[in-house]
Amino acid sequence: MDNLKERALQLHKDIQGKISTELKTQLENKDDLALVYSPGVAEPCKKIHENEEDAYLYTSKANTIAVISDGTAVLGLGDIGPKAALPVMEGKACLFKKFGGLNAVALVVDTKDTEEIINFVKAVSPTFGGINLEDISSPRCIEIETRLKEELDIPVFHDDQHGTAIVTIAALINSLKLVGKKPEECNVVISGVGAAGSSIVRMLNDFGINDIYAFNSKGILREGVEYSKDLYKKLAQETNKENKDLSLEEAMKDADIFVGVSVPNKINKEMVKSMRRDPIILAMANPDPEIDYDDAKEAGARVVGTGRSDYPNQVNNVLAFPGLFKGALKVRSKKITESMKIAAAEAIASLVDESELKDDYVIPSPFDMRVADVVADAVAKCAREEGIAQK
Amino acid sequence: MDNLKERALQLHKDIQGKISTELKTQLENKDDLALVYSPGVAEPCKKIHENEEDAYLYTSKANTIAVISDGTAVLGLGDIGPKAALPVMEGKACLFKKFGGLNAVALVVDTKDTEEIINFVKAVSPTFGGINLEDISSPRCIEIETRLKEELDIPVFHDDQHGTAIVTIAALINSLKLVGKKPEECNVVISGVGAAGSSIVRMLNDFGINDIYAFNSKGILREGVEYSKDLYKKLAQETNKENKDLSLEEAMKDADIFVGVSVPNKINKEMVKSMRRDPIILAMANPDPEIDYDDAKEAGARVVGTGRSDYPNQVNNVLAFPGLFKGALKVRSKKITESMKIAAAEAIASLVDESELKDDYVIPSPFDMRVADVVADAVAKCAREEGIAQK
Repeated sequence: MDNLKERALQLHKDIQGKISTELKTQLENKDDLALVYSPGVAEPCKKIHENEEDAYLYTSKANTIAVISDGTAVLGLGDIGPKAALPVMEGKACLFKKFGGLNAVALVVDTKDTEEIINFVKAVSPTFGGINLEDISSPRCIEIETRLKEELDIPVFHDDQHGTAIVTIAALINSLKLVGKKPEECNVVISGVGAAGSSIVRMLNDFGINDIYAFNSKGILREGVEYSKDLYKKLAQETNKENKDLSLEEAMKDADIFVGVSVPNKINKEMVKSMRRDPIILAMANPDPEIDYDDAKEAGARVVGTGRSDYPNQVNNVLAFPGLFKGALKVRSKKITESMKIAAAEAIASLVDESELKDDYVIPSPFDMRVADVVADAVAKCAREEGIAQK
Repeated sequence: MDNLKERALQLHKDIQGKISTELKTQLENKDDLALVYSPGVAEPCKKIHENEEDAYLYTSKANTIAVISDGTAVLGLGDIGPKAALPVMEGKACLFKKFGGLNAVALVVDTKDTEEIINFVKAVSPTFGGINLEDISSPRCIEIETRLKEELDIPVFHDDQHGTAIVTIAALINSLKLVGKKPEECNVVISGVGAAGSSIVRMLNDFGINDIYAFNSKGILREGVEYSKDLYKKLAQETNKENKDLSLEEAMKDADIFVGVSVPNKINKEMVKSMRRDPIILAMANPDPEIDYDDAKEAGARVVGTGRSDYPNQVNNVLAFPGLFKGALKVRSKKITESMKIAAAEAIASLVDESELKDDYVIPSPFDMRVADVVADAVAKCAREEGIAQK
């Protein structure tokens, strides 16, 4: 990628922040000032004081997302702290605006304490229409999101968990069409059971997959084994139906699909060769996949997707979160539910027309500007059907 | 003001939020995405992780202010809660951008607890270059600001306290020039000793005023009286040197200057008539002043200033806070000090040229677009001289 690193650094230095705040109305004279600020501003204030829901009518709550992180699990960098995470959150805010047409405010917080983060988000929640949690390390991220979903009446979504999961399912929907298999005929090996992995497991089960072999860095998850993390215990219950004690090599032989959200070079060509007919490989480790695209193809993989923009089938969260929040805000949904996530995955998959569908094109490009609106419509429809839409 | 209320409501409904977030750089293709987000964004992240100060180099921390409120003391409306206060905070954010060229994010918080607000602001502080507290009720606002100033290394400023105080002093600097008096020859009656009043008292003392008679709703502040609020006790020590027990009528007879930050119609024409030579009246109650402009003039006031835009000498905070933060951020000052506030007041006053100075023109118009830069330069210079500038 030539001098990408230098260019990225220079760009950030040149603009000092990738997002700005701008006035949506003119402010050129005393009359404007009286409308925008004192005394005219008292009128919408009074309306909202009478009926809190009117905040959606008169303020940016209707169209603004907070992108909140403590900087503990920044992509490929780990726990670098809030200030160092700010460029990522600003970037995310840019994606919300560019793809979803939503305002987004990056907020990095100077605490790693679960309760303090929960209290922080609750405190700031009147300001926003939705909360996108980002790059918060596992397993705290799961408790934080779960609690906030229970306690707040606006959508809360930890993108690291669910964004990747939604796009993974979208890719699988189309991949299975290509290879002529049904979910209930397929076994999946998943490598990596942190934030993203645990959400993928849940969505794979909702999707109807036959069985899942989930691996953490120490091996396959099984019931009866003592785990330090409650999350592993829970995932052991949700996977590996027959509680098999398999190595990664052994599990791969029984798999139709490999999903990687772990570390580079986790699997090799031999393992791919050993898989069932028409292997589907979604190797999404950052910055390098669990197996190189070319190696996987050479070993006989039918469909290969990675997180990389320089190969086909880029599994990129940006296909999901802008449309998901756009749809949720459109109908003022109180939550983002499992059904809405499945609806989003189906909507993403639907944008690859059957006539275009091929091994190297199972998901739309991140720059396919149709995606967010199609996802938004599907998500909004789903929220209405579930009875959690408030308009 | 014709149908201002209806127009204000309609404007807010039409635009649903007065401020938007916008990209400062293009995001049109995969190369842009690689620069703005993954993988390029890792480069500024790493730099900031090595040296936290680099957040000012690579992120919006360099140029972004948080406007934070709990909605407990909204102008003229009182404790209306966070959601209802959001239109005011958005308006304030507009003023920061329009007049100071700074990005500003409105954050309303769902707690009135002093410790929780302090913790909230501390948690979010890595994101921002400065914190503007707004419309938080007294006396909590004073403790919150004091604690945050001690505990954070970015400027924290409660505009309701100090903004009005700075512009008041600016107006007095020029008014005293007009009437040919020195601060040390003047007595001031101040009505209203909440957030703004207490900061005005402090600045009047720094300005060198001879004596101050401070009135709360029950009467003059005096040492030896039992007060429920510590603030009143403190102010009693800082005012009324001879500890006189005067009614408002009696105090006015001994005053050169009246400063009102209380309620409409607090003083009358007789009181103005009874004042010393060339009375100066700054009657800033919202929405109507402590005495009408015309009544004060008829009673012989030489200079009359109010908060209203439809009369001369509008004492408007917007003359102070945009330039103050712009200057503080320019030199990366850790604090906003008393000296910087005085420097801001002098800078505002200096923009009324001696050749233009007259009874009805002692302070610049809020739309005098020279003000913020002149204030910023003065404040930056002061911070450097005080040794608290970090660049």
